[in-house]
Amino acid sequence: MTVLILTSDEDVTADMVVLRLGETGVPVVRLDPADLTSGVALSGEYVRGGYRGHLSVGGRLVSLNGLRSVWVRRPGVPAARAAQPSAWLTEESSQALYGMLRCTDARWMNPPDAARRARHKPWQLRLAQRSGLAVPATLITTFPQAAREFAERFPDLVVKPVSGAHPQEPPRAVPTSRVAPDTDFAAVAFGPTLLQRRIAKRADIRLTVVGDRLLAARKPADPEAGPDEVDVRFARSVSPWLAVDVPQRVAEAVHRYLKGAELAYGAFDFAEDADGIWWFLECNQSGQFGFVEMDTGQPIATSIAEWLAKDVESAGSYPGDGRGTAR
Amino acid sequence: MTVLILTSDEDVTADMVVLRLGETGVPVVRLDPADLTSGVALSGEYVRGGYRGHLSVGGRLVSLNGLRSVWVRRPGVPAARAAQPSAWLTEESSQALYGMLRCTDARWMNPPDAARRARHKPWQLRLAQRSGLAVPATLITTFPQAAREFAERFPDLVVKPVSGAHPQEPPRAVPTSRVAPDTDFAAVAFGPTLLQRRIAKRADIRLTVVGDRLLAARKPADPEAGPDEVDVRFARSVSPWLAVDVPQRVAEAVHRYLKGAELAYGAFDFAEDADGIWWFLECNQSGQFGFVEMDTGQPIATSIAEWLAKDVESAGSYPGDGRGTAR
Repeated sequence: MTVLILTSDEDVTADMVVLRLGETGVPVVRLDPADLTSGVALSGEYVRGGYRGHLSVGGRLVSLNGLRSVWVRRPGVPAARAAQPSAWLTEESSQALYGMLRCTDARWMNPPDAARRARHKPWQLRLAQRSGLAVPATLITTFPQAAREFAERFPDLVVKPVSGAHPQEPPRAVPTSRVAPDTDFAAVAFGPTLLQRRIAKRADIRLTVVGDRLLAARKPADPEAGPDEVDVRFARSVSPWLAVDVPQRVAEAVHRYLKGAELAYGAFDFAEDADGIWWFLECNQSGQFGFVEMDTGQPIATSIAEWLAKDVESAGSYPGDGRGTAR
Repeated sequence: MTVLILTSDEDVTADMVVLRLGETGVPVVRLDPADLTSGVALSGEYVRGGYRGHLSVGGRLVSLNGLRSVWVRRPGVPAARAAQPSAWLTEESSQALYGMLRCTDARWMNPPDAARRARHKPWQLRLAQRSGLAVPATLITTFPQAAREFAERFPDLVVKPVSGAHPQEPPRAVPTSRVAPDTDFAAVAFGPTLLQRRIAKRADIRLTVVGDRLLAARKPADPEAGPDEVDVRFARSVSPWLAVDVPQRVAEAVHRYLKGAELAYGAFDFAEDADGIWWFLECNQSGQFGFVEMDTGQPIATSIAEWLAKDVESAGSYPGDGRGTAR
């Protein structure tokens, strides 16, 4: 039973996991969908009620029926490196590859449809509330008047994108910024705007969840930092990430969240306030973890390798049943 | 409790359903996501564990918490008609709108993630097999040698796209065509190719499923048609579509299929052979139905309106639980 990793060639984080998988002796195949029709080939046959599928990667043949798990890491655009790339070839290759992979009983980290849904921040905030996590008061709006009223109730606000990274090439992270007190909000009418109560934080928390395993890291905030420095990705670092225990209530809520989201992997960002409360900011279903593992020494890559290598009873029923694969 | 219909302005099929809904007295809101930030506004507030969302369409305010159902018909690209459209605005608007709609307990026809998965033809074929439908022998491959061997076992083949319509503007339907007996298949290496045993058909079947209701129509094949005329969409019509009963075994299998696919609506295409067997060709989760209703007089629009208007107990648990909304 083989582990399939979908990612690009240059991915040192995947390298770490491949290394761990190699130590367990589980066969691993690494594939970039961009190489379809040039180095990667596929075939699936439906005859008399049965299905047999194969992938060929650099000359090595892999049975799709023998796939144990699929790790969707950083896959390239299907057939992007074909001799004659086109939107049509990409669409055909994407449907063929992901359609065939969905025919298998493999466990997914993460299931593609659940992963797509999990990117929606408005949905994340609601699921976090329902799961019992503390969520800072948030407004997503195109009504200037709603924004003004929200700013009256919560005068200390930050603004951040609804969707994450700006879709330029390469994608650019848009920092979370503080809203100036005299903001007029008229421009809100021209695009959805996410306003959130600023958490006066004493630390940032990154909680990486792999299956049932929780690995939390904490980075104390710079005591010299002004209230305008809200985004840890762009702030001066005064400490490395340090391993930290997860409060029991948060642990239970996070498990509820991932069960509801049908995800096997999630990287949660929290802001810790002066009372020690962890405020949910977001959960990135494909969040990086290399920087945390480097600072804390936490075995995240090993946990992923173990999850991917795990033996699980086949569900053996409808493909649709296998979607909630946070087993 | 309001029914929300996501579609473009010019959609006569939606008009039919809106008319029926009007007769039932259920409030309906019709919205094109393309009008976001120009005519359509949205707002959602997350405060103290609760969520309240609103849409404004042409000045009319609708509570998201009061949505009964959402019909994803032919929605435009979010914010496409904004004053200053951009990829970034579309992404932000899409995440905001669909993220907020996913926060509700509304029933979906069809749930967007299930709909996306259901477009994958390789997955459709496997689910059809598992559901107990007759599936013609099929090969999807980029291996020329696999294609040649398949053609030896099944000499009478058709070829069709893996993904459906060609992604040009406007999208172009690519017809299913017969494979010439002397085909070499070398070109298969340049893109995934779907080969399927040709069914010598005596009729085409279109089976429209709305919730639990099955509405089947049959169009006898032209007895003069040569074996090269395989695609009903491009063939000469010798008869209108005629209502037909669904064999019990097919009915049960189709219900299993839609349950597995987590869809509330599906338009199945079958080819009926000389023995009366219905061979599964595909299931289009957004398939048109106006032409069938016009020919047969079957109450498809009414069935959709009734499904959308139905009162259903709220699930009241995680958003994730509500995905299988073929309730």
